[in-house]
Amino acid sequence: MNTQSCITALVCPKCKKRYDYRELQNLCQCGSPLLAEYDLERAAGMVNPGLLKDRPATLWRYRELLPVLDDRHIVSLGEGWTPLTALPAVAAKYGMGNVYMKDEGLLPTGTFKARGAAVGVSKARELGVRELAMPTNGNAGAAWAAYAARAGIQAHILMPEDAPLITRTEITVAGADLHLVRGLISDCGRLLSRSIPANGWYDVSTLKEPYRIEGKKTMGYEIAEQLHWQLPDLIAYPTGGGVGIIGIYKALRELRRLGWIAGKLPRLVAVQAEGCAPIVEAYRKGAAESAFFPDSKTVAFGINVPKALGDFLILEAIYQTEGCAVAVGDAEIITSLRELASLEGAFVCPEGAAVLAGLKKLRDADWLKAGETAVLLNTGSGLKYPDILHGGP
Amino acid sequence: MNTQSCITALVCPKCKKRYDYRELQNLCQCGSPLLAEYDLERAAGMVNPGLLKDRPATLWRYRELLPVLDDRHIVSLGEGWTPLTALPAVAAKYGMGNVYMKDEGLLPTGTFKARGAAVGVSKARELGVRELAMPTNGNAGAAWAAYAARAGIQAHILMPEDAPLITRTEITVAGADLHLVRGLISDCGRLLSRSIPANGWYDVSTLKEPYRIEGKKTMGYEIAEQLHWQLPDLIAYPTGGGVGIIGIYKALRELRRLGWIAGKLPRLVAVQAEGCAPIVEAYRKGAAESAFFPDSKTVAFGINVPKALGDFLILEAIYQTEGCAVAVGDAEIITSLRELASLEGAFVCPEGAAVLAGLKKLRDADWLKAGETAVLLNTGSGLKYPDILHGGP
Repeated sequence: MNTQSCITALVCPKCKKRYDYRELQNLCQCGSPLLAEYDLERAAGMVNPGLLKDRPATLWRYRELLPVLDDRHIVSLGEGWTPLTALPAVAAKYGMGNVYMKDEGLLPTGTFKARGAAVGVSKARELGVRELAMPTNGNAGAAWAAYAARAGIQAHILMPEDAPLITRTEITVAGADLHLVRGLISDCGRLLSRSIPANGWYDVSTLKEPYRIEGKKTMGYEIAEQLHWQLPDLIAYPTGGGVGIIGIYKALRELRRLGWIAGKLPRLVAVQAEGCAPIVEAYRKGAAESAFFPDSKTVAFGINVPKALGDFLILEAIYQTEGCAVAVGDAEIITSLRELASLEGAFVCPEGAAVLAGLKKLRDADWLKAGETAVLLNTGSGLKYPDILHGGP
Repeated sequence: MNTQSCITALVCPKCKKRYDYRELQNLCQCGSPLLAEYDLERAAGMVNPGLLKDRPATLWRYRELLPVLDDRHIVSLGEGWTPLTALPAVAAKYGMGNVYMKDEGLLPTGTFKARGAAVGVSKARELGVRELAMPTNGNAGAAWAAYAARAGIQAHILMPEDAPLITRTEITVAGADLHLVRGLISDCGRLLSRSIPANGWYDVSTLKEPYRIEGKKTMGYEIAEQLHWQLPDLIAYPTGGGVGIIGIYKALRELRRLGWIAGKLPRLVAVQAEGCAPIVEAYRKGAAESAFFPDSKTVAFGINVPKALGDFLILEAIYQTEGCAVAVGDAEIITSLRELASLEGAFVCPEGAAVLAGLKKLRDADWLKAGETAVLLNTGSGLKYPDILHGGP
């Protein structure tokens, strides 16, 4: 068919096996997530930075670099093109250069999860999915439930019972089927993998379907475009499942091949909580994969992921860009959350606050230099954490 | 000074007295709110719809029609240019034509209050304000606290103790001075008017300072631009203090004089809760002003305003556009809230849901015709009302 999308295949980053994007896919036979591949030469002939200016202020402006073939399948609530807000008071206080916050709290459902859900649900609808299922720490489930409702797809969501309360409301009001589980997201995943085969649901767990990352990568496209294609020195990201950092790295490589950016890529920084820091531990050892982090616990619930399926991709992104991984304590997270609100007017989620705490450590160690430009990813709105200052849900 | 702003004066809509916009002003000596006036011929020479396309996706794209003189005083968190989302499933279910939702839940602080706060705080900073004070039902206080923090202005907020809990967190985390009051927003206002003279705070109560409405009017500009300057048949708005509907009406008149729109203006519809419907009662009588609505109560807390200072301006907007006012019950509000989430994927605030309930009534009565285009204003995110489905805070 005649399509604007330049997708050509799904490719395994481990064993290089290729899969057809016109059929439903999950993991590679070798167990690795699949990544979407595009004909970037064709895309560069169809769109360029000058033409982008006339496109809508949503992630769909990067139409050619997204996997949906037919516009009629796009399920949109106006997601994307979130503000890149300067943080001058924070920068001054800590002797940093230019610090910007990419504020993903202003997306539908209040978190960055809306990007992956918009693209993932659109593609699922295009491929005829009627029911989908996933484990979640709350925010992804809320986003997928909302977009599935808009698409007329039934969603089945498994969530730890101590996930943020607001996400329960979001999931049920959207008409999704919610199961609360006593355990972690990894326990939800295990339960789900047992019930999926019998029910014929499409498994949209993190990185088990290949298109969520395509939505997330648009953060990288937007940061580059909003900075007029002059990249920052580093981009720091709160890292749980890691789809965001993997997506941004994928975006940067695509942008370089498109010829829209040049030179050195920004150093990508994974920020984790001290109570759940498997990527930081792997980074310290120079390892290519992480080990399961036992008894994990942190106030930044969204990054409580003891073992990420895409850990090797996260670590590759860090090593290839000469980035790093840094862990911060819960008290430092709360302090940074208060600072962003009282100095900059931004009430962020604890995961976003963790990134500021991480940047402060990197500045102290002079790993972040005085004159450098840093982009801090805030993955969600503080509105989803009404009790964050009162020590519990 | 050389400025992009085309503001010329503050004018009383009642007695026509003019005031200097280069000094701090509150109400007119006659007790009426003041409205900002612009040199629209000059503005039309500086900007036009074609030039707007290259402007940032924030409300500051309408720079000439905003009152801030010097860009350096702009206090921004990236507010504005919120999505105008189609609601095809709702339209089909109720035999409506095109229905769009202007989704103000995607603004900083999660409500439309951010527009007024961004412009109001920017102008306050420009005029040297160090401390400001206001009564609030919660969301306005949260927005002004956030923008005041970013501006380095101390905010003093008085709020009913049964206002949404999340707004307490927002106000305190931003470093504002919060006072909880046993009573309604009108009681907060009375307390405040006693304490303001002694403290020298700038009173930014609804319509008591003239610039909040300038922020709100950008909703009207955006709706027109997003519909490519082809206006809808009606715009329906949840009406408490009424600044939104007054602002949209002001925007439409300015747009007509700028020459960017032509023809009949959209009918403006004020939607209220049956438990607090002073404007609806006035409209039914054909009155020019409303009477205090006693013992008001509704689940849509943000529109629990028993007597609006700008009631005569709201009613003028309705009468002049051949609009109407309609009241809906709390049960209808909750039903509509569930419908928007489960059919369209949009988790809205009860005030936004009230507007859909109102549109259904108007469609039933054939006041809204089958083929007409309606814009529904959703003033905030459902995320601020985590307990809306459980019958209380």
